[in-house]
Amino acid sequence: MIKKKLFTPGPCEIPPSVFKAMSTIEHHRTSQFKKNILEIQKGLQYLFQTGQPVLTLSSSGTGAMEAAITNTFSPQDLVLVIDGGKFGERWGEISRCFGLEVITLQIPWGKAVEPSQIENIFEKHPTIKGVLIQACETSTGVAHPIEEIARFIKEKPNTLMVVDAISALLTMPLPMDEWGLDIVVAGSQKGLMLPPGLSFIALSQKASRFEAQSKLPRFYFDLKKEKQSLEESTTSYTTPVTLMLGLKEALRLICQKGLETIFETYNLYSRVVRTTIEAWGLKVFAEPGAPGMTAVCAPRNVSGTHIVKKLKENFDITIAAGQEDYKDKIFRLSYMGYIEPEDVFYLLESLQKVLLELKVPIHTKGVLEKAKSQLKL
Amino acid sequence: MIKKKLFTPGPCEIPPSVFKAMSTIEHHRTSQFKKNILEIQKGLQYLFQTGQPVLTLSSSGTGAMEAAITNTFSPQDLVLVIDGGKFGERWGEISRCFGLEVITLQIPWGKAVEPSQIENIFEKHPTIKGVLIQACETSTGVAHPIEEIARFIKEKPNTLMVVDAISALLTMPLPMDEWGLDIVVAGSQKGLMLPPGLSFIALSQKASRFEAQSKLPRFYFDLKKEKQSLEESTTSYTTPVTLMLGLKEALRLICQKGLETIFETYNLYSRVVRTTIEAWGLKVFAEPGAPGMTAVCAPRNVSGTHIVKKLKENFDITIAAGQEDYKDKIFRLSYMGYIEPEDVFYLLESLQKVLLELKVPIHTKGVLEKAKSQLKL
Repeated sequence: MIKKKLFTPGPCEIPPSVFKAMSTIEHHRTSQFKKNILEIQKGLQYLFQTGQPVLTLSSSGTGAMEAAITNTFSPQDLVLVIDGGKFGERWGEISRCFGLEVITLQIPWGKAVEPSQIENIFEKHPTIKGVLIQACETSTGVAHPIEEIARFIKEKPNTLMVVDAISALLTMPLPMDEWGLDIVVAGSQKGLMLPPGLSFIALSQKASRFEAQSKLPRFYFDLKKEKQSLEESTTSYTTPVTLMLGLKEALRLICQKGLETIFETYNLYSRVVRTTIEAWGLKVFAEPGAPGMTAVCAPRNVSGTHIVKKLKENFDITIAAGQEDYKDKIFRLSYMGYIEPEDVFYLLESLQKVLLELKVPIHTKGVLEKAKSQLKL
Repeated sequence: MIKKKLFTPGPCEIPPSVFKAMSTIEHHRTSQFKKNILEIQKGLQYLFQTGQPVLTLSSSGTGAMEAAITNTFSPQDLVLVIDGGKFGERWGEISRCFGLEVITLQIPWGKAVEPSQIENIFEKHPTIKGVLIQACETSTGVAHPIEEIARFIKEKPNTLMVVDAISALLTMPLPMDEWGLDIVVAGSQKGLMLPPGLSFIALSQKASRFEAQSKLPRFYFDLKKEKQSLEESTTSYTTPVTLMLGLKEALRLICQKGLETIFETYNLYSRVVRTTIEAWGLKVFAEPGAPGMTAVCAPRNVSGTHIVKKLKENFDITIAAGQEDYKDKIFRLSYMGYIEPEDVFYLLESLQKVLLELKVPIHTKGVLEKAKSQLKL
C-alpha cells in the first residue's frame, strides 16, 4: 500500500488510472474526441446536478470566476461580495477590476456568513444584481450556508446567486438546479482528482438572461461562444487534451462510486479529523467546517508553517499553511481527491508524531486508536 | 520502432520522458516547485532568445493573444492586423472585442504579406500603435517576413510589433531581442512537444512602457501581476502542475539538442516534404512555407478532407484538413514536436499509398527513394 503524500486543498492525489489515461495524446477536432466531449459533458452535468451545459475552460479556477462576472454583469452593476477569506476577497477584486460597484460583506476569517446579514443588506440595497460567494472558502475551510442564501435569492428575478464551488464540488451536496444556483464555478485539481489546468462553469437560465444583457468585453472566456462549440461537441479553442482524457476517466470513477457515497466518505474523513484534533486538545479553526478540508488553529508558541515544514521533512507529507494574516496562525489539512481511509490515518499518525516532537502538550491516549476504528481500519 | 501517428499542427507527438515527467503530482507553492519555475524560466528565455521574463499562463494560445492586447493597448487605439488566415483574423476579432480601432490588411490565404504593404499603410496612418501578425499562419502554413517588418517597426517608438509565434516557436529562428520583437506569444502543444494547456508571453521594454499606459481591464491575464509572481518564482494562480513538470523535461531535451540543430531538422523535414509533394506533381499551397508544416493543395477532384479521412482509416495517421473556405481545398502536414526522420518517411509513404488508392495521377518513380535518402535513412 503506497501512502499518499499530498494533503493540500488542491492539487490533490490522482488515481493511477487517471494518470494512465493522461499518458497519450490525440487531436482535439476528430470525431473520436467529440465522443469524449459528449461523455465528459454527461459526467459534468451529473456532478453539477444540472440540466444546463457545463462548460470546460482551459484555465485555473480564477479564470472561470472572471468568466462568471464578465459574461453576466455590466459596468456599474451592484454586486454583494461575501468576503470571509482570500477567495471571497478575489470575487471583490475581479468585480472592481471590471468596473462593477461592490458592497463587501466582511466576515471574520474562520466564520460563515449568516443569511440574515445578506437579507439586511438587500433591504437597504434592493438593486443588487449578484451575490458572489464561496461554497467552501479554501483559505479558512469554512462552508457558507449556500442552500439557505440561494432560497432567498431565488425569489429575486434580478439577482444572481454566483457560487465558487472550486474546493466544494464533490465534497458536499450542491445540487445546482434544485437549489437554484445561478452560476457554479469549479476547478479540476480538487474533488475531481485531476491536475490543475481545467475549470468549469455552468449558468442557469436566469444567468443566461443576464448573459444576453451583459456589456463587458470578453473573448477567450466568451461563454456564449463556448456553449455553441459544446453544441457541436467541441471547444472554441484548443482544449488541454491530456487533462480532458484524464477527466473522462476521473468522471467514470466518480460516477461508478456515486455522489452519495462520495459525500459520505468526505463526511467520515472530516468527522474523524475534527474529532482527533479536538481529542488532542487543539482547536478547529472553521465554524462550520467544509467536509473536504479542516483548518486547525496552530498550538500556542508553535507556528503553522513550522508544522507544515516538519511534516514535509519527517514524512514527505505536504499540507498547506494559512494564507495572508493567517499564514502562521492556522494549518490546513485536506483529504480531497484520491485519498483512502489508510491515508487519512497516516496523516493523523504523522501529525501526532510531529506535534509530540515539537513538544505541543496534547492528549494522545486512545486518540489514534479511536480514529482508526472510526475509519474502520 | 513505434511509428508516430499525429502529424497535425498541434497537438503534436510527445517524448516518452515528457510523459513520464507528467506522471506525478506535487504542490505548486513549495520551495521545490519554485526551483522548477526558476529552471523553466531559464529554458523559456533561451527559446525566446530574450533577457525579458517569459510568462507562463494556464490557457490556450488564444488566451495569451488576448493578454497581449489587453495588457498593452487602450480603447480606440489603432492597430494594424495582418490577416492572411484564421489566426490573423483572430487578432482582428480580439482587438475589436476590446474596443480597438482595426485596420485589416487582407492577404490572400497561402500568401505572405509584403513589408512594403505595411510601410504604405503607415504613410497614411502614422499613429498605428501595434502591428499584429503571425510568424507562421497555422491555417495556411505561410511564414510572414517577421525580421524585415520588425526592422521597420523598431524605429517607431509608438508602435509595437506583436508576433503570434504559437506554431512557429522552435521551428524557425525568432530571436526576440535581436530582431526587436515587442510581444511574442507561444503555446505548449507545438514545437515544445507538450500537451495543450500552457501559453507563453514575453514583453520587450517598449511593450512594458505601453503596459504602464494601457487602460483595458484584465484580471486573470494581468501580466504585471504575473511578472511580480515570477520574481518570487511562482505564478499568480494555480499553475497546471503536471504540464509544468513536462515543460521542465521538454526544455531539458530542447536545450540538450540546441536551437540550431532543431531549426536544421525542421528545415530538412520541410524540404523533403515539399520536394516529395512537388515530385508527385502536387502543389504546395503556402508561399513561402513555414518550416514546421506544409499545406498542400488538394488534387483535382479529390477533397482535402477525404485524404485526411483515408490516412486515418488506413494508417491511423492524423493530419489536418484546411480551415473555413479551405476545408476541402488543402490538407496540412505537420512534423512539429517529437518527430524523427523515420516518422516523416512513414507519413510520406502512407500518403503516397492513399493518393494511389484514390487514383490521383502522381509520379512515383524514385520519389520515395529520394525522400529516404534525403532523410538519411
